[in-house]
Amino acid sequence: MPRVINFGAGPSALPDSVLQEAAAGLLDFNGTGIGIAEISHRSKEFTAFLAEVESLIRTQLDVPPTHSILFTQGGGTGQFSAVVLNMLARHRLLHPNLADEDRVLDYVVTGSWSKKAADEARRLGGARVHVAADARLHSKDTKSFDNIPTHDKYKFSLDPALIYYCENETVDGVEFSADPSSAASFPFELLPEGGLLPLVGDYSSSFMSRPIPRLADHAVIYAGAQKNIGPAGLTILIVRKDCLVDVDAAAKLGAAAVPITMAYKTLSDSSSVHNTPSVLPIYIAGLVLRRMKELGGVQYYEQLNKRKADKLYTAIGAGEEKGIFKAKVREGSRSLMNVVFDVLGDDLEAKFIAGAEAKGMKALKGHRSVGGIRISLYNAVTEEQVDAVVAYMNEFIQT
Amino acid sequence: MPRVINFGAGPSALPDSVLQEAAAGLLDFNGTGIGIAEISHRSKEFTAFLAEVESLIRTQLDVPPTHSILFTQGGGTGQFSAVVLNMLARHRLLHPNLADEDRVLDYVVTGSWSKKAADEARRLGGARVHVAADARLHSKDTKSFDNIPTHDKYKFSLDPALIYYCENETVDGVEFSADPSSAASFPFELLPEGGLLPLVGDYSSSFMSRPIPRLADHAVIYAGAQKNIGPAGLTILIVRKDCLVDVDAAAKLGAAAVPITMAYKTLSDSSSVHNTPSVLPIYIAGLVLRRMKELGGVQYYEQLNKRKADKLYTAIGAGEEKGIFKAKVREGSRSLMNVVFDVLGDDLEAKFIAGAEAKGMKALKGHRSVGGIRISLYNAVTEEQVDAVVAYMNEFIQT
Repeated sequence: MPRVINFGAGPSALPDSVLQEAAAGLLDFNGTGIGIAEISHRSKEFTAFLAEVESLIRTQLDVPPTHSILFTQGGGTGQFSAVVLNMLARHRLLHPNLADEDRVLDYVVTGSWSKKAADEARRLGGARVHVAADARLHSKDTKSFDNIPTHDKYKFSLDPALIYYCENETVDGVEFSADPSSAASFPFELLPEGGLLPLVGDYSSSFMSRPIPRLADHAVIYAGAQKNIGPAGLTILIVRKDCLVDVDAAAKLGAAAVPITMAYKTLSDSSSVHNTPSVLPIYIAGLVLRRMKELGGVQYYEQLNKRKADKLYTAIGAGEEKGIFKAKVREGSRSLMNVVFDVLGDDLEAKFIAGAEAKGMKALKGHRSVGGIRISLYNAVTEEQVDAVVAYMNEFIQT
Repeated sequence: MPRVINFGAGPSALPDSVLQEAAAGLLDFNGTGIGIAEISHRSKEFTAFLAEVESLIRTQLDVPPTHSILFTQGGGTGQFSAVVLNMLARHRLLHPNLADEDRVLDYVVTGSWSKKAADEARRLGGARVHVAADARLHSKDTKSFDNIPTHDKYKFSLDPALIYYCENETVDGVEFSADPSSAASFPFELLPEGGLLPLVGDYSSSFMSRPIPRLADHAVIYAGAQKNIGPAGLTILIVRKDCLVDVDAAAKLGAAAVPITMAYKTLSDSSSVHNTPSVLPIYIAGLVLRRMKELGGVQYYEQLNKRKADKLYTAIGAGEEKGIFKAKVREGSRSLMNVVFDVLGDDLEAKFIAGAEAKGMKALKGHRSVGGIRISLYNAVTEEQVDAVVAYMNEFIQT
């Protein structure tokens, strides 16, 4: 079967050239005569490769030496728990004598994923969860995730153990703006001042799609790889070094014990190979990142991704004028990665999807929790592929 | 570079034919026009594939309907924590009013990995760790892992929350015998009677190499995939259904909170896709398991693996007679998967390794913690490859 156009929300499209290179690497990694899925994670060849992957991320995102780059497994959902456990351990070491109910975790809830993260913090206990902003309260119907709240809507706590946000909400198609003058930017100016910010960002679905605003001010940035840079099974962490804490010392003071694979310090002390990492996903991500550097890095993709999204939102706008499409997200808060809209009218949504599939465009269905159409525009989706779907949408609204 | 002979201990050799098939699947999975690293884990095509993988394991290992087969990430090290958390939650629900110091976790320590598992249980707390047997006490120098203790050396607790053992110790090259009449078999007859056994087996490095003795009596069996069946990044669990407990209900009674990705019930309720699983490693494991079934399943590999190990131990014996080799493990306790020995005499070990590498045989160095030679004979290592190393060893002891 010829390759189709894959607009899936993750796992999602990867560049053809990378997949061809990876296919060769399955049988012979780097001239070793051993395939990449078969080689020891402690071999000098893989150790060098892992260091290169780290460096490709560090240089392209401009990660300062204050921060470690780590590789682990378990996806964003694993990090919902890990960030809470590590940041509460850090808070315990800083403030050993506070009662649990006086420890606070601040969550900015702008979509399904940040909501799930807050739910997991509540499950784990050990602190009070404070919702610093809830986008639903400011939505068209007070229950939808259709916006990034304006800065006047946030209320942060005084000394939270973490301040959590999700940059891009894959299900709901809302994304913080990277432009600090936008009303939908992250309200950095409201954060507590002085000392090291406990700021945690889930960048799973926007990682490497553009530069990260105020990266150096983050305690932890994490991302599942399966959107812009690789296969599922790899999670990338950028952790400020003061957050690599001795979780056992914190546990002696009353913090929850941290499963060893979730302890950031253990991961860092072992250069991400305390236990066997997901070698093959790391390899493919490395190939994607190498290609990305050659093309011009995150700056290149930032421009490309803006052009792609502009074209698509323009096509949705044209459909809105005809009463056929309806964008789900408020202007200004719309994601460059996951573009969501409804097709209005009886059975027209099914017709829209079937027509696209007939043209070789797949995975356009919205997330099962919200329905509608979702077109994901991760780095590997080309401008030509966007042109193809836009042409189809323009044709669709004429008929 | 032509493919070399890979005797690595994990990640380790995979069959050439599977790697070629996987290379094609990277560009087109199952005629979808989407590569396996790019397809949604909730697509009907991958859902069907995952169900097939489960069935390939269930039929070949004869897993009864009392047990669920689950797929997760994080490797054996992740399970060191997860089994403790889940089995302590289960124990809490069964015995809500016991004090932590009256809960016991029984560990059988026969090598580096079971020792690490017991260490992690101590780190996590919530119960007392009791070492039911320690192979070092019965070794040639009271400090080596060179044996499986005889049955008279075990002391199990009355009502432990778990009874833990590691079937094959990858670093030390000791393995329980699958023959119940052997002194090195697991002492099933000594286990507490009545009720459902809380027996936990780490099968990471012997999974699918032969049938699992008394599988139905196990509470949990787990295995990292990166030895006999696939790439790193996939962990397979076989969990008896009474061990799929409501960890949140247990936490309300005082048990430790369990990170959501480690909760067996959540994993089971979601058919292993609560969060995105490691799709690509699962795919390759599935191809390996399909091929395995065609060849004759675990029975086929049991015979093959015995022949391979016999040949190798015979060659070591011939070297011992010449005073050149020295097996590290007591006869009867020797692993069929990881064969460890010393090359005696100044610089002879380095010469042995260099000579093997010149013949295209790689990854023969023992684990850094114990030194010596380690030749791993996982399923994908062919009898011809074993014949090649045996010929080299016989040649080596002549010169």
